[in-house]
Amino acid sequence: MACLFCRIINRELPAGIVYEDDEVLAFEDTAPQAPTHLLVIPKRHIATLNDLEAGDQALMGRLPLVAARLAKERDLAEDGYRVVMNCNDDGGQTVYHIHMHLMGGRRFTWPAG
Amino acid sequence: MACLFCRIINRELPAGIVYEDDEVLAFEDTAPQAPTHLLVIPKRHIATLNDLEAGDQALMGRLPLVAARLAKERDLAEDGYRVVMNCNDDGGQTVYHIHMHLMGGRRFTWPAG
Repeated sequence: MACLFCRIINRELPAGIVYEDDEVLAFEDTAPQAPTHLLVIPKRHIATLNDLEAGDQALMGRLPLVAARLAKERDLAEDGYRVVMNCNDDGGQTVYHIHMHLMGGRRFTWPAG
Repeated sequence: MACLFCRIINRELPAGIVYEDDEVLAFEDTAPQAPTHLLVIPKRHIATLNDLEAGDQALMGRLPLVAARLAKERDLAEDGYRVVMNCNDDGGQTVYHIHMHLMGGRRFTWPAG
């Protein structure tokens, strides 16, 4: 299995896992760009946003819910935070398993990259 | 009704609307930061990511599906794109009605702001 994130899900690679349920995993980004920088991913392998199908709607809806929950747990809710998903090269996607970046603990500039 | 985006939904303010269905509206950002810069929003007023409840899961799952569809229509899918949601001040949120920025047509840097 080549996918880095699938290997993390399967505990074949270590990661700083902070949340897990049947469908979603969240863990620390190994190259954090903010005091809090987590990745929230579906456990099911979906390579990019382009690969989403209608049946993925509920699963994709869980990502912002989990991100918001983690932000609250870290006391980021009031000050705020940013969530980002990158698709393919122009977007800056580096791992081809959909992931939502949750970044907080500092002020983010605009535009977002 | 004070919410800018609710007024766009209700056609009380003009906007470059590019997509609409029962639950979701998408329109051009008036201060575009990329050749394509659209906002994908739920028609139901939800102020911030902090205000999401479990019952919002399906609705929130529609945002990336609509964003990916719009990206495909604009031939952004292969090169790629970035989607961003900002929460409160640190995140850079300026309109307090949840919106997903879809930005494409150029290369995005990292970190995302």
